[in-house]
Formats: sequence, C-alpha cells, structure tokens
Amino acid sequence: MRLLVINPNTTASMTEKIGFAARGAASPGTEILALNPASGPVSIEGYYDEALSVPGLLHLIQTTPGFDAVIIACFDDTGLDAARCLTDRPVIGIGEAAYHFAAMLANKFSVVTTLGRSVPALEHNLHRYGLATRCARVRSSEVAVLELEHPGSDACNRISAEIGRALAEDRAEAIVLGCAGMADLAGRLAAEHGLPVLDGVTCAVKLAEAMVGLGLKTSRLGGYAPPPVQKLRATA
Amino acid sequence: MRLLVINPNTTASMTEKIGFAARGAASPGTEILALNPASGPVSIEGYYDEALSVPGLLHLIQTTPGFDAVIIACFDDTGLDAARCLTDRPVIGIGEAAYHFAAMLANKFSVVTTLGRSVPALEHNLHRYGLATRCARVRSSEVAVLELEHPGSDACNRISAEIGRALAEDRAEAIVLGCAGMADLAGRLAAEHGLPVLDGVTCAVKLAEAMVGLGLKTSRLGGYAPPPVQKLRATA
Amino acid sequence: MRLLVINPNTTASMTEKIGFAARGAASPGTEILALNPASGPVSIEGYYDEALSVPGLLHLIQTTPGFDAVIIACFDDTGLDAARCLTDRPVIGIGEAAYHFAAMLANKFSVVTTLGRSVPALEHNLHRYGLATRCARVRSSEVAVLELEHPGSDACNRISAEIGRALAEDRAEAIVLGCAGMADLAGRLAAEHGLPVLDGVTCAVKLAEAMVGLGLKTSRLGGYAPPPVQKLRATA
Amino acid sequence: MRLLVINPNTTASMTEKIGFAARGAASPGTEILALNPASGPVSIEGYYDEALSVPGLLHLIQTTPGFDAVIIACFDDTGLDAARCLTDRPVIGIGEAAYHFAAMLANKFSVVTTLGRSVPALEHNLHRYGLATRCARVRSSEVAVLELEHPGSDACNRISAEIGRALAEDRAEAIVLGCAGMADLAGRLAAEHGLPVLDGVTCAVKLAEAMVGLGLKTSRLGGYAPPPVQKLRATA
Amino acid sequence: MRLLVINPNTTASMTEKIGFAARGAASPGTEILALNPASGPVSIEGYYDEALSVPGLLHLIQTTPGFDAVIIACFDDTGLDAARCLTDRPVIGIGEAAYHFAAMLANKFSVVTTLGRSVPALEHNLHRYGLATRCARVRSSEVAVLELEHPGSDACNRISAEIGRALAEDRAEAIVLGCAGMADLAGRLAAEHGLPVLDGVTCAVKLAEAMVGLGLKTSRLGGYAPPPVQKLRATA
Amino acid sequence: MRLLVINPNTTASMTEKIGFAARGAASPGTEILALNPASGPVSIEGYYDEALSVPGLLHLIQTTPGFDAVIIACFDDTGLDAARCLTDRPVIGIGEAAYHFAAMLANKFSVVTTLGRSVPALEHNLHRYGLATRCARVRSSEVAVLELEHPGSDACNRISAEIGRALAEDRAEAIVLGCAGMADLAGRLAAEHGLPVLDGVTCAVKLAEAMVGLGLKTSRLGGYAPPPVQKLRATA
Repeated sequence: MRLLVINPNTTASMTEKIGFAARGAASPGTEILALNPASGPVSIEGYYDEALSVPGLLHLIQTTPGFDAVIIACFDDTGLDAARCLTDRPVIGIGEAAYHFAAMLANKFSVVTTLGRSVPALEHNLHRYGLATRCARVRSSEVAVLELEHPGSDACNRISAEIGRALAEDRAEAIVLGCAGMADLAGRLAAEHGLPVLDGVTCAVKLAEAMVGLGLKTSRLGGYAPPPVQKLRATA
Repeated sequence: MRLLVINPNTTASMTEKIGFAARGAASPGTEILALNPASGPVSIEGYYDEALSVPGLLHLIQTTPGFDAVIIACFDDTGLDAARCLTDRPVIGIGEAAYHFAAMLANKFSVVTTLGRSVPALEHNLHRYGLATRCARVRSSEVAVLELEHPGSDACNRISAEIGRALAEDRAEAIVLGCAGMADLAGRLAAEHGLPVLDGVTCAVKLAEAMVGLGLKTSRLGGYAPPPVQKLRATA
Repeated sequence: MRLLVINPNTTASMTEKIGFAARGAASPGTEILALNPASGPVSIEGYYDEALSVPGLLHLIQTTPGFDAVIIACFDDTGLDAARCLTDRPVIGIGEAAYHFAAMLANKFSVVTTLGRSVPALEHNLHRYGLATRCARVRSSEVAVLELEHPGSDACNRISAEIGRALAEDRAEAIVLGCAGMADLAGRLAAEHGLPVLDGVTCAVKLAEAMVGLGLKTSRLGGYAPPPVQKLRATA
Repeated sequence: MRLLVINPNTTASMTEKIGFAARGAASPGTEILALNPASGPVSIEGYYDEALSVPGLLHLIQTTPGFDAVIIACFDDTGLDAARCLTDRPVIGIGEAAYHFAAMLANKFSVVTTLGRSVPALEHNLHRYGLATRCARVRSSEVAVLELEHPGSDACNRISAEIGRALAEDRAEAIVLGCAGMADLAGRLAAEHGLPVLDGVTCAVKLAEAMVGLGLKTSRLGGYAPPPVQKLRATA
Repeated sequence: MRLLVINPNTTASMTEKIGFAARGAASPGTEILALNPASGPVSIEGYYDEALSVPGLLHLIQTTPGFDAVIIACFDDTGLDAARCLTDRPVIGIGEAAYHFAAMLANKFSVVTTLGRSVPALEHNLHRYGLATRCARVRSSEVAVLELEHPGSDACNRISAEIGRALAEDRAEAIVLGCAGMADLAGRLAAEHGLPVLDGVTCAVKLAEAMVGLGLKTSRLGGYAPPPVQKLRATA
Repeated sequence: MRLLVINPNTTASMTEKIGFAARGAASPGTEILALNPASGPVSIEGYYDEALSVPGLLHLIQTTPGFDAVIIACFDDTGLDAARCLTDRPVIGIGEAAYHFAAMLANKFSVVTTLGRSVPALEHNLHRYGLATRCARVRSSEVAVLELEHPGSDACNRISAEIGRALAEDRAEAIVLGCAGMADLAGRLAAEHGLPVLDGVTCAVKLAEAMVGLGLKTSRLGGYAPPPVQKLRATA
C-alpha cells in the first residue's frame, strides 16, 4: 500500500518530520511518500496561506502515480474537498482524522493549535464536519508553525501549559494537537497530562490504511463528482 | 492484536456471520474473538432490546481477558458509553464507525436500517455524535434483523430498493447499512448502485486496529472515568 | 391515581426520601408507590451505573400491577426510552421534568449536579431533548450521591456555593438540582438565592398527575412501539 | 386555585369554548376565569394579529386580581415573554404546553395548525424553545380559525386528513393541534388515528395546576425582571 | 427616496439623535423621516417595553404616506415581523442590520448592549435570524438607555470597558453596539479599539437604500402575507 | 467609489454580463471595474474549480490599485476568507449578499443553482454563515453555467420550473438565484412567480456601496489578520 502524504507548505524539514511520523505509524508493507509542493507558502497559518497552497497540492495529486490514498498533512485540511474531486481513492485530512478519533475516545475534546489567526478556520471545519458540538474549545498556544522546527524553542512547554488550561477550564477529556508540526509531541504530552493527546498525522495514516484495506472509495456522486476531462486538462 | 467483537444479541448464527465479516476485514496478526451474551434478546430492534442486552455485554468485557480493543457489533452502538467506563482500551460501536467513515468519503450519507422502530435510536445517536448534519435521512427497509439470517429471503432486494430511493430523494452520496447482519451485503450493493456502501463491522475492525496500532486509549477523565472498585465488584 | 416512582438504585434510604418528597407533592387521591430494584448499583453516577440499573427498573415496571404512570427517579433519566416501550402509560424522567418546567419559568437555567463524571450524560440528555440551548451550563458540586444521605454533611453548602457561581457566571435565571437525592433542598436554596430552584421528583409527580388527568398516553408508534410478545416473555 | 385563561382574540364564542375545555381539564377546586380583551383582532393568524392582541392581554393580567397562574390561550403563545415580566406567577402558553408534553410522549411530533401564514411564527417558537429538533414538521390544514367556530364546517375532516399525511410522510409519533379552537377535537382525532393528539388548552391547565401546586414562580432575574414601577404606571 | 425611521419609544431627544445619525449616513436624495409613537414606553428595555411599543409603531406605518422603506430603530427589532405584514416595502430592524453587516466583516462578533434584562431578547433574535453561531457573546454594559441621552454621563467609558472585555475574553473580531442610542459612539470606539464597531441605525439606512435601489420587496407569501382588509380596518 | 468586481472564472462574456448587471445596480458615482483572472477554470462548478480560481482572484486583488471594496462574483463565494486577509476594504461574496438580503425579506428562502455538484458547497457556505436554518432547500436546475451564456437555450425555463417546485414543496417565501450568470433573469422570474427573486451580483454591489458609504472595514483581528509581509512578497 502506498500513501501519498502531502505537506501543503514548502518547508522541507517539516515534510521530513511529517514523513518520519507517518512512517512510525504505518504498518509493515505501507509505503509513505511524503511530498510538498515546489512553490507556495512556507507555513500555513490562516486562510490566505491555505488558499495559495492548494494548487500545488492538487498538482501533486494529479502528477504522482500509483497511490492508494492521499493524506493532507496540514491541520486546516487544506484543499480537502477539491482533492476529493480528483481521485476515487480515500483523501484524508489530518484535522478531520484527529477529530473523528477523539470523538470516539472522549465525550469532549479541546484543540490546541498554533496562532490565534488559525482558530476561525479550525472552528469552521469543526462546524462543517458536524463535530463542533464535540469540541469544547479551540485554543491557540501562540506558538508559530516554524517555531516547532527549532529544537531549542520552548514551544512544547507553551503547548503543555495550554493543555493544562484546557483541563482546568473546558472539561476536556482529550486533546487534539492542532498542527502537523506537533506530531512528535503527542506521546510526551499524553504521558504528562494523563489523557489522550491526538496527533493528526498518525491518525490519518491509520485511517488511510483502514479505508484502503476495506476497499473504500471516495464517492463520485454529487459534490465530489470528477470534473470534466477538458477542465482537468486545462487547469492541470 | 486481539479484538473482542461482541454481538450483544444472543443469536449465534449472527455472531458467526459477524465474526466471519470481522475476520475478513482484519489484518494478519489480528485475532477476532466474536462472542455473544449467554442470555438476552435474540435481536436488537429498538430501545427495549438495547437496554436488556447491555448487562450481558458489559459482563463479557469484564470477564474476557487480554483484549486490545472492544467492538460492539450492534448498529445501535448498544451500551457504548457504559462499556467505555470499564476499560482504557478503545471501544468502538459499529454504528459510529460507519458514520465516521462515511463522513470522510461523502458530503452526505443516508442510513438504511431494518425496522422503523429502530430509526429514532439511530437518529438519537447521530445527533449526539454530532453527525446528524451529515446524514440526509435514516431510512428503514422494514426487513427484520432475523430475516437477514435466512438466505432465501428477499431482504437484499428490499434493502437495494431503499438505497434506490435514498439516491433519488436524499442527494445521498454514500449509504450506511444500519445493521450488523447486513455485513455481507455491502460489496454487492456498492457495485449495484455505484456509490460507497459502508458496513459497520468491517469499519470498526479497521478503526480498532488503527487505534491499537497508535496506542490510543479511551479517556479516563470525566464521563468515562472508571467506576469505584467496590461498585464494580458489587455489580459484576 | 397510582404513580409508580422507581428509584433505579438500591439505596433504600434514598427511595424513602424520594417517596417522601413525591408524597409531599402529590394531590389528594394520588397514591405514591416508591420502589427500588432488589439488585443493582447503590447509586447512579455515570454511564456504567445507569446501564446496570435498567433491567431492574424494567422488571419493576413489568411486574408492578395497576399503575397510572411511571416516574423514573434518577436525574439521568435512566432507562427512559426502554421503559416507554413497556407501557402506554406516561413515563416521566425526573431530569426531563425539571428541564421542561425550568424552560417555562426562565430564559436560561443552569444545572447543579453531583459529580463531574455525571455531567456528560446530562449534557447528552439535554442535547437530545432539544433543551441544550436553554441550559447555560451543567455544573458539578462534587457532592457524591450518598453524601446527600448523611444529614451532617456540608453537601447543601457546597451545592449552594455552586448555585452562587451559576448566578455570577452563567446568567442563569433558574437552577435545576441534578440529583433525586436533592429533593429536600430545593425550597431552602430557592429562598436563599431568590430564583426558581427545581427538583425533578416533585416536578415529575405533578407532570404525571397532569398527563394522567388528561388521559394522555405514550405513543405506540415508531420508537416506542411495544416489543413483540415473545421477546417480552423471553427477557422479562 | 384560580387560573386566568386569556384568549387574546376578541371572539367571545371562542373564549367560551376555551373556558369549557379548560374547565373540563381542571381539577376540583381549580377555578377557571376565561377572559378576552375588549378590543383587538377577532382571530390570531400570523404576526400582525399577534402584535395587536398583546396590549389587551397584558392589560387583563394587570387588572385582574387574585390569580395563581396565567394561561395564554393562543397557539402562537402571543405575548408570553412580556406577560412573564408582569407577574411572578407561572405564565404558560398553550403552544409551549403542548410541545413540552408531546416531547415526553413521543420521539417526534408534527403540528397541524390552521393557515399557512401562521406556520413561520410556530416554527420560530419551536426553534426558540429548543424543541424544533423534536418537531418533524409544522403543517397547515388551511382551516381558518373562525371556521372552527362553525359546527357545520368540514374543518375536522380536513384536519384529520392532514394528520393522515403527517403519519405517512413525517414519521410523527404524536400530533399537536395548532389552535386553541381545536380544543374539542383532540379526543376524537386521537381515537381515529391511534396516536397521542395534544390540545394546548388542556395541557396548559394541568401544567399551571402542577406549577402552582409546587409553589413554582416565574424567575425575576434577567429577561423576566419586572419593569420599573414608573414604566408600569405609564403604560398600564 | 424616503425612509421612514421609527424610534418605537417615545423619547423625542432619542428620535432626534437617531434622525441625526440616519441623515449622516443617508445618500444625497434620501429623505429621512424620523418619528416616534405618541404614546408608549419612554425606553425599550426588555420584553414588556417591546410589546407595548408595537401598536404605536404599526400605527405609524399604517398612517404615514409615501415611504420607500421602513427602519425600526430599536435594537430589539421591535415588531419587525408584524410590520412586514403591513407593507411590501423593505422593513429593516437596526439589530438585524448590524448583525448581518458584522457577519460579513468578521468571523465572530460580540454585542455590547445596555441592561442585562435586554440580553435574552437579543439572544432570541440572533438565534432566530440564524446568526447566533456568529455571535461570540451578548454583553451588557449596565448603562440604561436614557443614560445615553445625558452628555455628562460616563456611559461611553463603561461601554468601552465592556468592549475591552469582549476583546480579551471572546475572540471577538468586531463589536455590534446594542442600542439605537449608541449611534454616535461607534466611530470613536472603533478608533479606540482598532476593530469594526457597528451601529445599527446607520447600517439600516444603507441597507434600506440598497434594497430600494434594487427594487426589492418584502415577500407577500407565507408568514408576511398581508392581513385581510377587514382586519386591518378593525385594528388600525 | 470604485468597486473591484471579480469574476473568478476566465469566461470573458460572463465577466461582461456581470459587469453590465453591476453597473445597472450601481449608484451614480460608483465605478465598476469588472475583471477576471487571466488563467484558471472557464466556469466554477464545484470544489475543484473553486480551488483553482482562487490564486488568480487573489492576484487581481493584490495588483489592482485603488479600489474601495471587492466583490467576488461567483455564487460559491470563492476565496472569500483568503481575500479578506489581503485588504481592510469590505470584501463581499455574491452568495452571502443574496442570502443576507433574502433573510430580511422572507422567513425562508430556497436557492436555485446550476448543477447538483455545486449543491454541497453552497450548503456548506450556508451552514457556516449561520443562515442554513433560513434556507428551506438548495435546488439544482441542472443548467450548466455556460449554458446561461447561450441566448437560445431554454435555461430560463428550466430555472423557472425549479422555482415552481420550490414554491410547491418548500414553503419558500423568496428565491435566491445560485449563479452569477443568472443576474439578468431575476426581474423576469420575480414577476412570473410573484415573490422576491434575488440575484447576488446586484445585491453585492449595493452592499459594497453601503459599507463603503459607512466607512466600514474588514476586521484585522483574528482570522482575517493580514499575513506577514515576507509571506505576501513570497506568494504574490
């Protein structure tokens, strides 16, 4: 099985970290192909970055041969709907993966993401997926995405402090980490706080394996119907 | 990995069919232990059956050693919350498994279940999980659960006809089959109608494998906190 | 008129207190039959206790002759849906009774219950009844159910302090007491805080009298349709 | 106990019918004082009629001495919030009374009201009370309010036909009759269709008796706080 | 173009201030006719005042000739639905105008109104308009409506302090001022806090101009259908 | 005042039609600058087209000097959130403009759009704006966007037939036309069916004039905060 894991931003070190986390979660026999677009934003923090990263992401889906499922490794689930129009293979966003898992492990969860500017986009997604009623609160740690790439930063401590506030104020029973770049922190934070801490990259890898294993496909009816061939040619 | 798959009703042929479907979905190395309570309702069709099957189900969880996750193989997700209080292992209902998968493969799905009397319980679950906004409609085929155990019945045809109505009237992009006893029909109906048709048993097996693979646990905080030891002793 | 008031836990002193409160609220000519199951949990604090108390509760409904309505005297409205399948008489949960009354006396109410572990089950009920939008917040006093049975405890003070917080933080215009064991505290707390404080036991008694007086019955269609006779025989 | 039952329109025959229904439902010892304003609309069919009937209704509350509760006997629950600002006695709308009762007797109910022009106001109320999720559909029979006052009309047949459609199309488990003038039809229609058919007038009488019996009061905090005395004087 | 701007309370100084604000916002060629009823409450603070001001407001609509649109210049949108039954011209409440504008300038907004007693009515409106999910919180400054008429009061400072709390606690991206009497404060508060601060009077004037400019009319179908002529005659 | 009206697809004849409609709605003194991206999809029908048209749309905003507001003239409100990050001027989608206007002219509206594949994206928007509860149904006429450019097609008849069904089945009190290319049909369809028929292009022009007239700006806080300068440089 071959999973196309796309980091929609152009920061190669982050793609590498995501690939590493994905491989750590993958079953034997699952190949992880972690890619990022050649051009676009270096990090995705809010609506503008999201919009500009989508064409590169779609291009990777259109030009990478032979994958069994696609994972969009940005917590905003950037371009998820458009990507689903391009393939009948499962396409999974790491945000939705983590939310759906959390909803089966806890009555309510809180999200701890990076910057406050990203919060509305995540709330928008939760609302749309239907899972807003399961999320106690989307919190920002005010840790910028690229700070997570600097090993010496105190990013993890600030994220941990925000988890502490979620426990004290939100009645959260689980925590969802709101950035692909936090994939390496989940285990440590779960141990520290004594509750499930979910990272979307690893959740998405397992979900993709699950769907591929069952032969499930993205629907071709309605909103995800494939665009006409002439449009695909014109815009690819 | 060892998955405890509980059919909460007492119909052994159905437990067998569920076990067969579960094994068909399981990865190599996953052992499926398909059990049903010794006493309780022969089928679960509505609130009363649900309530009476729960103690037997909980007893199986309390007395079966060495499982890595529990699957509740009734589409009502019978006893799901109570079961989660008994173990820190993942506990997955086949209803929620199918709903969460469908929500990642289609914009909207419809459910086709057995009898009309079961519809409110499913609507209740969807509402609670947050996924009611993703479900176009819960439909009943008026096929009783145990009819599904009779190979000569026209159950599959009636279910197929109801799927046809869901396509025509609901703008459904995927179908969720609303009974564990329909596990063997999903492939055929998906091919016939050309859209994803989800069976909860197989979805739950893969979800359980995914969660166990990631070391995820049911939260021990809040609503799923373990009952005090003296209560467990008194009621086991 | 004869009301079957079931305390679903097995603590006889609590059944007595509930019966006393119910009789205090009943009209002349209303007989209160307060019972509890012979076996099951000693208190209901969360999903597990709920599940295990239901069969005993259903058994009491099936074996007690000649009632005009049933009251389920646990604030979780334990087994409410299943009980409604067993009789065409009105079946009222004390939780729903208090919520519906509060919704007609105030724009918003807050709930003050016992332990935090019970909060998700109450939120779940409110969501399902439709009244979640009317409830400002479900609060826990961290008073255990059986503490309410000890006259010397400071339970009432702690509940009162939580009501104070509901007034200060929630814009609550009324308070619902979230445990059958608090039935004797409502009057005193209402006087102390100057707002309606609702106890579910007394509300349910009056609602039952109201429905019986009007000849209203539980619907026999759809979700509350009676189970087939052979099932009732097999599981009773 | 003395219940002030206000028909907010000025049609005396309807006030009489409402009074008759209310007395039929009342317990011994409950006095029903059925009044209507001296001036205002002859029937309440939509927002305009509602608005113009409110001052007369409020005036009756302000000038009628010695009541224990108020019932607003128009299915739109005309002026309910304003009336609650005028008294700490319970104030109950017949619409809300029927909705709350229906929600405890059935999983879902449909409303059958008079004219299509009244439907949005009822939907608005249901949405606000929180009970919109419990109502399958608000239907109009296109029977005008005053037709219900003509014994020879085929109003009941048309209402019955609409109930038939609710059963066939809405999965309704109970019916709420959406007009005070239908108070005399509920029993007959329930028998004909074999499901609970609720009339708001009788439900409200029993609810008022229940609340008065428990000593419950309308909250004086927040939205129902009494207006300052000088305002009451100026506008009474 | 001629806009009928109705202050539903009887405080002439406030009508004047509203007229002044409206004229400041109006395009050249737009005539503002600012009126208030001859009798009724001096300020509108909650449900009771609302109800009593509506007949005067409707009377002004029925007796003022030659307007192109109506603006209801009370933040509760007093009598909005009834007014729409009286004319096919656009009828706009200043509350809805400000909410709809805020929803197109920010992801979430908070409302700062006068007294706490007005909060439930505003929440009710937001819920009904559908925009409750866009409003972070309705806050009260505890500034009474008529304090806003006293130039020497510290009303603006207290409102500003409440905006500060909305920024700190609500993640509000815009503020809606919840009273017609605050029309003169919006510019100053926007500059002070660095975010959009919306006043409903000016928003409504521009919306009315927009709708009239496009020839848009209030629907005559369903809930806003005109009352029968004999009713209009009888109640005018 | 200068309004930048962007047709996000690349069909110049449609840009022209949109510009013509916009100019027809604009006040004297308002300049309409109607542009489309140089490259991208020829029509926007669903998620894929949407995603690919956004970068061209954002580029036009970044490179066109001197506008007072931006109108996104595609009914999907393509790229709306990202566009708002680029400017403090009002940015208005034609979809939201029409929805907000319809919500002030009718209790409920239905949408009639082009192809079924576009329906989920519109439902998604309505849900997010909060206005889903005001929309009875999103309907597709199965008229493709570019058919609207062919004068001889029977597109208008098919749209009219769908409006007829909305009236008969949805209790719709107003209709929103779900495509920029339908801008020229609104007047005729409103006259034919006797209810408000809203076209988003003209609504958005008037809303933009209204907001600019009031000096209102897009919030710079939270989700619409401007991206850092280095990102804007890198991605422009």
